Amino acid sequence: MSFSVAVSGATGYAGGEVLRLLAGHPEARIGAVTAHSSAGVRLGAVAPHLHGLADRIVEETTVENLTGHDVVVLALPHGASGPVAAQLPAETLIIDAGADHRLIDPAAWEQFYGSEHAGSWPYGLPELPGARDRLRGAKRIAVPGCYPTSSLLALTPGFDAGLLEPDDVVIVAASGTSGAGKSPKPHLLGAEVMGSMSPYGVGGGHRHTPEIEQGLTAAAGTPVQISFTPTLAPMPRGILTTATARLADGVDAAAVRDAWDAYYADEPFVHLLPEGQWPTTGSVIGSNHAVLQLAVDPHAGRVVVCCAIDNLTKGTAGGAIQSMNLALGLPETLGLDLQGVAP
Amino acid sequence: MSFSVAVSGATGYAGGEVLRLLAGHPEARIGAVTAHSSAGVRLGAVAPHLHGLADRIVEETTVENLTGHDVVVLALPHGASGPVAAQLPAETLIIDAGADHRLIDPAAWEQFYGSEHAGSWPYGLPELPGARDRLRGAKRIAVPGCYPTSSLLALTPGFDAGLLEPDDVVIVAASGTSGAGKSPKPHLLGAEVMGSMSPYGVGGGHRHTPEIEQGLTAAAGTPVQISFTPTLAPMPRGILTTATARLADGVDAAAVRDAWDAYYADEPFVHLLPEGQWPTTGSVIGSNHAVLQLAVDPHAGRVVVCCAIDNLTKGTAGGAIQSMNLALGLPETLGLDLQGVAP
Amino acid sequence: MSFSVAVSGATGYAGGEVLRLLAGHPEARIGAVTAHSSAGVRLGAVAPHLHGLADRIVEETTVENLTGHDVVVLALPHGASGPVAAQLPAETLIIDAGADHRLIDPAAWEQFYGSEHAGSWPYGLPELPGARDRLRGAKRIAVPGCYPTSSLLALTPGFDAGLLEPDDVVIVAASGTSGAGKSPKPHLLGAEVMGSMSPYGVGGGHRHTPEIEQGLTAAAGTPVQISFTPTLAPMPRGILTTATARLADGVDAAAVRDAWDAYYADEPFVHLLPEGQWPTTGSVIGSNHAVLQLAVDPHAGRVVVCCAIDNLTKGTAGGAIQSMNLALGLPETLGLDLQGVAP
Amino acid sequence: MSFSVAVSGATGYAGGEVLRLLAGHPEARIGAVTAHSSAGVRLGAVAPHLHGLADRIVEETTVENLTGHDVVVLALPHGASGPVAAQLPAETLIIDAGADHRLIDPAAWEQFYGSEHAGSWPYGLPELPGARDRLRGAKRIAVPGCYPTSSLLALTPGFDAGLLEPDDVVIVAASGTSGAGKSPKPHLLGAEVMGSMSPYGVGGGHRHTPEIEQGLTAAAGTPVQISFTPTLAPMPRGILTTATARLADGVDAAAVRDAWDAYYADEPFVHLLPEGQWPTTGSVIGSNHAVLQLAVDPHAGRVVVCCAIDNLTKGTAGGAIQSMNLALGLPETLGLDLQGVAP
Repeated sequence: MSFSVAVSGATGYAGGEVLRLLAGHPEARIGAVTAHSSAGVRLGAVAPHLHGLADRIVEETTVENLTGHDVVVLALPHGASGPVAAQLPAETLIIDAGADHRLIDPAAWEQFYGSEHAGSWPYGLPELPGARDRLRGAKRIAVPGCYPTSSLLALTPGFDAGLLEPDDVVIVAASGTSGAGKSPKPHLLGAEVMGSMSPYGVGGGHRHTPEIEQGLTAAAGTPVQISFTPTLAPMPRGILTTATARLADGVDAAAVRDAWDAYYADEPFVHLLPEGQWPTTGSVIGSNHAVLQLAVDPHAGRVVVCCAIDNLTKGTAGGAIQSMNLALGLPETLGLDLQGVAP
Repeated sequence: MSFSVAVSGATGYAGGEVLRLLAGHPEARIGAVTAHSSAGVRLGAVAPHLHGLADRIVEETTVENLTGHDVVVLALPHGASGPVAAQLPAETLIIDAGADHRLIDPAAWEQFYGSEHAGSWPYGLPELPGARDRLRGAKRIAVPGCYPTSSLLALTPGFDAGLLEPDDVVIVAASGTSGAGKSPKPHLLGAEVMGSMSPYGVGGGHRHTPEIEQGLTAAAGTPVQISFTPTLAPMPRGILTTATARLADGVDAAAVRDAWDAYYADEPFVHLLPEGQWPTTGSVIGSNHAVLQLAVDPHAGRVVVCCAIDNLTKGTAGGAIQSMNLALGLPETLGLDLQGVAP
Repeated sequence: MSFSVAVSGATGYAGGEVLRLLAGHPEARIGAVTAHSSAGVRLGAVAPHLHGLADRIVEETTVENLTGHDVVVLALPHGASGPVAAQLPAETLIIDAGADHRLIDPAAWEQFYGSEHAGSWPYGLPELPGARDRLRGAKRIAVPGCYPTSSLLALTPGFDAGLLEPDDVVIVAASGTSGAGKSPKPHLLGAEVMGSMSPYGVGGGHRHTPEIEQGLTAAAGTPVQISFTPTLAPMPRGILTTATARLADGVDAAAVRDAWDAYYADEPFVHLLPEGQWPTTGSVIGSNHAVLQLAVDPHAGRVVVCCAIDNLTKGTAGGAIQSMNLALGLPETLGLDLQGVAP
Repeated sequence: MSFSVAVSGATGYAGGEVLRLLAGHPEARIGAVTAHSSAGVRLGAVAPHLHGLADRIVEETTVENLTGHDVVVLALPHGASGPVAAQLPAETLIIDAGADHRLIDPAAWEQFYGSEHAGSWPYGLPELPGARDRLRGAKRIAVPGCYPTSSLLALTPGFDAGLLEPDDVVIVAASGTSGAGKSPKPHLLGAEVMGSMSPYGVGGGHRHTPEIEQGLTAAAGTPVQISFTPTLAPMPRGILTTATARLADGVDAAAVRDAWDAYYADEPFVHLLPEGQWPTTGSVIGSNHAVLQLAVDPHAGRVVVCCAIDNLTKGTAGGAIQSMNLALGLPETLGLDLQGVAP
């Protein structure tokens, strides 16, 4: 079942990763490759790692250029994908790698993004409870943010099993700097970034906070509140999320391990590591895999779960392809059976 | 007031940093420079950054070689400094940069280190309540661990002012790999470390946990329990600590800011940054400074405090020199008026 | 045409990369995975990026364990592959990713490696003149060293076309630290490597010197002598080679560009970039591609050619698979149509 | 002998390093701190590593603001320091850390910089033959470029002693990205830089080429021509220069070693390392030291000299202070007795 796909925002980091994965997808035919400021240039000049697509000319991101494909991937700044999507045909599968269609609650959208809500689409994290049913045959998919992907993978099994208290969840995550995008800003310069770590969006202000709470609340069946602190780490890719929640009364370490073990037993891309082995972001770079480990701290009455993903792959483009496969009725792992690139 | 000082463990990262700072200290005369496996070699061959000391020959770490100095710095593996210290004269100022004399509670020592407790010395973090009084004139000083330094600097003002709940404190910290020492191990290889983050000692098992709790408990006047997760970041130096605690009833953001502001107002090395500016480890590398920022998250009912230090300077060797200055009756900042080396 | 393949030295960096590529090769069935000190452990414990092979148990590297496969890849320390290869059946395709069978001249081997010469096999760099003919149907292949791969790709077109003087060739190359292997040594620690560059093997002593000269001499048809300096760069992967040679009398910039253009016009993996675009190692990581750019410096009478490869892919494992495909009569690019993983 | 000093371009990397060193200089009183786009902001907001100067307000770079100091350091883009310098009093010591006054030959300036030549000042590399005499008491000093500093330190002893052929000098250098400045550009983003090396200015086009040739020609007493290739390495600071020249007839390894040994025997900041020890940029970060090693390659008839410096310290700001000390009649090493910050 071959299909055509257009990629907008193709010269950004997310769009480039979508193209990298599509170039290796056995059923995908890459159609229009669009961007804004780079329109008219060879793709090889702005994304030199895409050797197989180097001679493609980047087109302008317009509805016309995107129309006529089976699938359209939107990798645009937040606020930009809503209007474009509204003009594309209903039968086109649209995958929004941006934020516009992730949040269900319009008030949360307006509070954190300050613009009108574009609406809510099926959420492209197949490992969430019931998600695959919503994604199969879908024509519209909202790809999760990278921090929400790792945070939800870390804690969902515990909330789904009723083992965790819904308040006092604390998440601290470290991301590679590709997560901050390709627009040059002084604090993202190599000389500033290398050898340095820094927090940002502290105190609940990061836009991924309501998205994480939305997912955990659905899993828990009761409102979950989190304290979320993202930090920038001196690496190009990868997210290491450390998530901790208080255990419900009477929950012990064995019950915790069993719950996560069972939840991910059949997942192709999410792995609870053997006891004693801790996740490293280095082991998932370039792959769609997520690796987890957890420990119960009886002293603090908490479980600590660490989850490592590649922010651009499982955290964005890989999750998009995985959801696309489901929507198209293809094997979920098609084109994604990639090992990590390490060291 | 010139004084002589011997440095043991001089070829390790902590010992090397002590020597770097002593080489710039206007009153210090560096005497014996000792180590174990490197004894007999030129210091320049194993610590080539110490240009001013390159031709020194490393001596064996023995009581004989260390005796006869006004000050002895012990930068030895835990368990090793206790026996050496016990054989040095009472009038020698001994600065233990290792763990042996940090914990007050012998049971905590035995639980986390698995050996006999060597005893407890005045704790070399001058910014703690009452610490300067204990350090002035002291003959024995226990230098804090690097994670405890940043964690205690982050949270002490709040506990000291009674603004924080003593349970549900969560600390997640990212350290440069020099914190793991200079013994070659596969997971510390450059190829493994670069581009990768990983947690370790999760679930309460890290040896710095009881040390952090000891300090916070003293500040709070009531037992404080923490969940502490250290992670390894792809950088040589620096610690970024994210510490969060629940606010006591009725505490608001202004009260929090005022408390930290007041606590550090006169400190030469610890700085609450202006609002809107976040700490970066890059800004403190090579210096004895700690930079902090905080945010109250009303949604989560928590304060989040981020603190950046250089693990080898303020986190080890700089803290050692600062405490040494106090013990010797010298100006506290002598030899430490260093800016960060950035970018 | 499905085939079985065994990989020895599987827990090293080269062996791990061979496995990563084989896991994505549509015709390869991975058989024995062997090593020495890691024999008996889960592969996932020592090579956690190979998610698809995590539950394989590493076997001891013995002739017995390697026998019975269509292909055997030897990724062993130099001196080790000769004896193993000698005991394997003649009909097995053996790919030696180590040094043992690269050099034609026994005296050069003995001078640089200090042991008995194991013999010379067809050299697995298909882009060299006549190489594909020697590789098709071969049963023994010597995979080039990583520095020779990039150096030969840089300069072969010029020597092949008779445009370059054979003396006064100067090559300076920077390699990621995976090139130095996975054995933990102090100077390879992350804390030592990050933020630092250093040369090694200066003055002609590096073992890749005779290998580079062997290839350039063959292309030139006259003895070529090089000055080769390798350096270690703070990155896990990648080699950037800067190679410069004096132009023969009367050779101008256009002739130079035409020669390289023509030489690589039909190559699937080697690309002379458009003028004005310079190679970055970041654009080839994880891929089998090599990117080149050159400039004629009329002032110095030299051409400067820069070539970027991934030392573990095109420089080792990718070159091995490419040559294996030729030997097995498969399409040369099978399993290697990978884009770079960037950023 | 206390003196006042103004620093323009204070928020760039070079200006920031000048301030870092001046803050530790026992005789310097830092006066105006000026910049252009950052005028009016707290210095701590744009250079947070300068803890001791954090509350200084950056002033606009004007002749008025710079006037009235004993010393003025100009750390401005090329072309900008000439006009400013022309308006400052003759008795003010002006240290130009930019390019404007480095080249003696107006034609070379115009060819490489494309603007009118501002004139030539005494060149601030005290280790060159006769340089100290020119710098003592000088009122105008041109600070060398970072690549020329390391290249000239590498090769001057050999040309000064007549041991090297003046043609076929090849220099390949790797620089940390602070050398490319603080203006945000896409290719300097952390995500692009980390894990990647790339060349630039290949083929003789880099502006430091005529400056290196100018210095080597002066040492040799005959025109020296070089092939110079700079590369960008994934590190914030540091330059590793690999310079190679053909030996004059009859010159052997002992003569070479003796020449470099003798030349640097009494230098406080330049060190030929003991045989067998190779320079690392990591060992000089933050210090004014340069470390060298060399090897004679009899096979290629060349000497290869590797030199490591910190591009911002010895390569810019440290060299500026060293020359300033000479000009002011102060001890040359005053304020510069710094060890490297490693690891």
